[in-house]
Amino acid sequence: MNNKLNKTTSAIIIIGNEILSGRTQDVNLSHLSIWLNKLGVRVEEVRIIPDIENKIIDCVNEVRKKFNYVFTTGGIGPTHDDITAKSISKAFNLNYEMHKEAFNILEKYYKPGKFNEGRQRMAMMPSKANLIYNPTSGAPGFSVENVFCLPGVPSILQSMLSGINDKISGGKKLLTKTINLRTVESEIAKPLKEVQENNGEVEIGSYPFFRAGTVGVSIVLRSEEESKINICNKQILKFVNFKKIELITQD
Amino acid sequence: MNNKLNKTTSAIIIIGNEILSGRTQDVNLSHLSIWLNKLGVRVEEVRIIPDIENKIIDCVNEVRKKFNYVFTTGGIGPTHDDITAKSISKAFNLNYEMHKEAFNILEKYYKPGKFNEGRQRMAMMPSKANLIYNPTSGAPGFSVENVFCLPGVPSILQSMLSGINDKISGGKKLLTKTINLRTVESEIAKPLKEVQENNGEVEIGSYPFFRAGTVGVSIVLRSEEESKINICNKQILKFVNFKKIELITQD
Repeated sequence: MNNKLNKTTSAIIIIGNEILSGRTQDVNLSHLSIWLNKLGVRVEEVRIIPDIENKIIDCVNEVRKKFNYVFTTGGIGPTHDDITAKSISKAFNLNYEMHKEAFNILEKYYKPGKFNEGRQRMAMMPSKANLIYNPTSGAPGFSVENVFCLPGVPSILQSMLSGINDKISGGKKLLTKTINLRTVESEIAKPLKEVQENNGEVEIGSYPFFRAGTVGVSIVLRSEEESKINICNKQILKFVNFKKIELITQD
Repeated sequence: MNNKLNKTTSAIIIIGNEILSGRTQDVNLSHLSIWLNKLGVRVEEVRIIPDIENKIIDCVNEVRKKFNYVFTTGGIGPTHDDITAKSISKAFNLNYEMHKEAFNILEKYYKPGKFNEGRQRMAMMPSKANLIYNPTSGAPGFSVENVFCLPGVPSILQSMLSGINDKISGGKKLLTKTINLRTVESEIAKPLKEVQENNGEVEIGSYPFFRAGTVGVSIVLRSEEESKINICNKQILKFVNFKKIELITQD
């Protein structure tokens, strides 16, 4: 199931010392991943790297060849540590230059006299970059070929995604079904393995949880075909019944 | 500052489709990173990869040569999708076999008759693996050379770290100072850049925040030398005063 043809894949590169140091908790990955799955694109790898130019260049140049799409987050603001645009320019051997449309957008966004040097820097991009419009705070993101560069602030990033829906051409959406059981993983490991062996095209994940005093396991079924998920689901409920395990919820 | 000699570095590999799909929010990275920094080890890269054997093998073999330490999270439970131990065995060309001490620990942990096949599978490890004891739920993690394999469940992972403190030999701790200002990044970008240029051995990060109706910027100073942070701090407070920017807090 993992080498399906025609699957549309992506990688996310999170650029930021603040994430690596543990100071800031990333929340963009889950938002991007759920959005991409709706468009039929799977996130197959994530890398979190520091604000260091050659690390960004090497990482982008490696992953953009391996995946259909690459999304970067972070490093496109006005300060000295915002080096994504310059790094992407170097990765693609493009000039790092003032983007006229971005400059015009930012000039209109700020009050007269307030469009200072730091703000003007946000219009510096790889030549021929396509803009990703920002309805929240003016400063656009950009894309070059299959690499889309987004900001790190979650609310701003989220507001920009609808503007690039039509630039992403995905395959089939991955469908998911979750079965929550009151049990422990080792009680179901053997029959669950058999179900996986009989259903190679369904990806079956098993995740223990501990919440509100309940110990349980979430079984997550993923496939492009609803009918295949349903067959798998039936086989799981059969052994769940047989073993008299409590079914908490399914969705 | 980014190529300092004698720096002790690490990478974290988060193994799990549930993180990549956006279903589960990772929280282990920040916990591990803060713990490692206390031991004088920097997290310089994180990779999040799927539960696919050859991806785990390739990733581990790439990063274990680049960094002093590698930590993996996830995939060491009893179910079919827990393939970390087998993958690590293959990465190091070691046999994947029953670890006697782990088997004994698990046999004692479970009630008589309850040490079933799924549970016994958790004693399967690379030959000669060193155990990482688990005070929470019995099943140990393990290490091979510089690669430490931990579970994905945050509470269990956290309970296991104190047991390997003495196996991690770090360098100097990275010290941090944070200055929170009521301003926007573009107002301070220019003088902050000058401070960075004058203080090459201090890493200066600038992070906008929006909370409880306040728009602000956190400036984070990182260095091994407190005196260098203090010099930087003074230079920043000088321009903050000059520009009449409100200092919210510093710590």
